[in-house]
Parts: sequence; C-alpha cells; structure tokens
Amino acid sequence: MSGTLYGVGLGPGDPDLMTLRAHELISKARIVAYPALEGGTSFARAIAADVIPLDAREIVMNIPMTTARSPAQAAYDQSAAEIAAELELGHDVICLCEGDPFFYGSFMYIFARLSADYPVQVVPGVTSITACAARAGMPLAARNERLTVLPGPLPEAELRARIDGAESVAILKVGRHLGKIRGVIEALGLTRHATYIERASLPDEVICPLADAPDTAPYFSMIILTKGVDPWL
Amino acid sequence: MSGTLYGVGLGPGDPDLMTLRAHELISKARIVAYPALEGGTSFARAIAADVIPLDAREIVMNIPMTTARSPAQAAYDQSAAEIAAELELGHDVICLCEGDPFFYGSFMYIFARLSADYPVQVVPGVTSITACAARAGMPLAARNERLTVLPGPLPEAELRARIDGAESVAILKVGRHLGKIRGVIEALGLTRHATYIERASLPDEVICPLADAPDTAPYFSMIILTKGVDPWL
Repeated sequence: MSGTLYGVGLGPGDPDLMTLRAHELISKARIVAYPALEGGTSFARAIAADVIPLDAREIVMNIPMTTARSPAQAAYDQSAAEIAAELELGHDVICLCEGDPFFYGSFMYIFARLSADYPVQVVPGVTSITACAARAGMPLAARNERLTVLPGPLPEAELRARIDGAESVAILKVGRHLGKIRGVIEALGLTRHATYIERASLPDEVICPLADAPDTAPYFSMIILTKGVDPWL
Repeated sequence: MSGTLYGVGLGPGDPDLMTLRAHELISKARIVAYPALEGGTSFARAIAADVIPLDAREIVMNIPMTTARSPAQAAYDQSAAEIAAELELGHDVICLCEGDPFFYGSFMYIFARLSADYPVQVVPGVTSITACAARAGMPLAARNERLTVLPGPLPEAELRARIDGAESVAILKVGRHLGKIRGVIEALGLTRHATYIERASLPDEVICPLADAPDTAPYFSMIILTKGVDPWL
C-alpha cells in the first residue's frame, strides 16, 4: 500500500498563521519536501522550521531561478520521482507550501505529476491576499463586490484594462514590476486607493500607501487596491 | 486603557483549519462575539464550539435575514455598541468570523464602526475559495494566471461578461442563484471546466461536476471554473 502525499499550506509567513491541521501533520512527519531557490534558502522550510521533527528526512526541491520552462520542468520531474519513491515504500510525504498549495504554489506541479498514481490530500492555507488585507486594515470585498487577483508580470496594457474594469484588486508578485504597476495605477487615477505591502506578517513587514512605496520591491510584495468596499453596509 | 478587538478568521468550517493564532486567542477568550442568523444558529460559533471557554461571555450579533440595508445597519450598530462597552472597560473581545474577516465577512461592518476608536487586530483565515479548490483537487492559478472572484447574486449579463473575460473563476454565494449561474456557464460552453462544491471541509460536503449539481444549493456553496491552469508548468 503506497503512502499519502500531503500538500500542506503554511500561510503567509508567521508560523502562528499555519492551521492546526498543518501543524499536526508537520509535527508528526517522517519525510518533508519543500521548494528552495537553487542553492538558496527555502521560505517554506523557514516557516515550518520549529515544527519539523529533528529526525525527519528532508527532500529539497531545487527550483532553478529562470522563467524558462525546460529547467523548471526537469526540476519538478526529479522532485516528483524522489517523492514517488518514498510513496512506493508506503511512506507519507508532507510537502510544505508557502501560502496555499493551489494558489500560485509550486505544489501544483508535484500534484499534476503524482495525483493520478498516489493518494493526495491538500490542506489549504491562509493566502498572502487576506494576510495583507488583515495587516493593512483593508476590507477586501463585501456583499456583491468582485475581487480580481492579478500577477504583476502581466503586460502593462492588460494590467491597465483589468484594473480599470475591476472593483477590488490584489496584485501579486510585484517585485521588479513595481514601476510599471505604479504607472498604471497612477494613470488610472487610483493611487490614493492603493496600499503597498511587503512580507506581510513577518518581522520585517512593510505597509504604506502606494505613493510612499520604496523604489524596489521584493518578490513577496503586493498591492491592494479597493475602489468600492462599503464597510458601513 | 481600552481593550483590543480581535477579528478572528476561523476558516471554511473544519475546526482543524483554524490557525494556531485563532485557536490561541479563542481558547483564552473572556468575551467572544459572533454573528447569528436572526433567531437561528451561528456557523462561526459552531466552528469554534470546542475551543470557546465555558465561562466566556458571548455577545450574539443577530443579523436579520433581509437584503434591506436599514435593519442590518441597526443590528451592526447595536452589536458594535455592545462590543464597545466591553472595550471601554478594558476587556478584549474576540469576534469570530467564518472564513476570513475581510473576505465577504460580517466583521468588516464591526471594523468600520470601531477601528477609529479602539485597537483592532485582524487574524486572517483560510477562505472558502482555497478550501474548495483543495477538496476538489483543482489548482486555482499558477504563474501569470488571473483569478476572478464573483458573487453569485450578480446580474446574469454581468456574470456572463465577467466569466467570459476571466481565466480561473470562483463564484461564491451560489445558493438560489444556481440555475442562473449554470445557464451562463452552459451558454459560454464552459460547463465541463466547472465543479460544484457545497459546505467544503464539513462532514456533509458535496463535490461534483457542475453538470451533476443538485437542483437547489445552500448559501455556502461555490462553483470553481478553471479554463487554463497548466499544472505541468
């Protein structure tokens, strides 16, 4: 009988924002897997560091820092094979994911490769979006309002059209696209409605009006823009 | 010195999907507040039932079952006043919220009424969206894909236009709008990409292709539609 693969969301960064279920699974893990930037650190592992048993086996998924598909595909193929070998032996594998496994998470590439052949359970996590909203004190959506989630790397014209037609907007993966995004929001006259958030829930968190945002942003940064939330009902 | 108001997300329903922080705050609470349908039960209280101390004071926010604004406003005014009276005495109040407090949560109406005058901390929770995706085994969004969140009560023409222009879509608050939404998705030729989920993570959960969905849906139901998630990277 094969083991079960668990895709476990860890939330936005503060370990206290992991779920009870995530905590339980990780604290009893014999084998954990997690993505790491090639030769670098793993944000997922850092969130769970105090919970991972000292004697657990750790499978590091080395993700190449490139937007090219082929090296990344090869990395996920190899990680999936390594995980599958443990599952074949009847061992459960706990795959750690920043945020939520199915929300811009690398776990979905492992899921795609293994879910047809092995039992998989996905444990949802707090996403960066609601974590940022909570920290910024910005209600995201009420009643019949729409929420649009846009990745920052989208082309300028598309960002402009999507933001223009949206109500509440969360723009993820701001990073080096900050200047472009800021320009789009400024051109739409919406800067006063936008808040910049960096590393939400972590000790070095930054929250400020978009107009006061720094010149450079890390990958884990977000802009929340709410045009119409009416919190008075 | 006044007390602190905590808006605490409880996640989608399974108590194990609350965060460690939520569990800690609730288990030490002296005063909890939560919404309840007028004269009825409270889903939020049910999620936290095993964690609320037996001797905690409970403030029930009776929300009238109507789409009219005035009775609901009066109900939130009254609940906010009741909470404020405790904060004035220096008592912390833990306000329980299904899902996430700032994501279609009633807490935002309390937040709007009290956040200028009292310290407020918002604890994000797992939303129904990622919980449904996890249970349905449906990755929501990867790389530069967009995610659009639409409330089911939106007019048919708007739903149609928004779904047509979207990539991944989560439609919340399906309930009595199921027939309308199903018609829109069918007309767009997208039914085969859509999954119906009811009461995700709870014992009486329902998950099925939209084509097989029941004729009537409860308020806590959702349709997830993903056109283009490419999980192979």
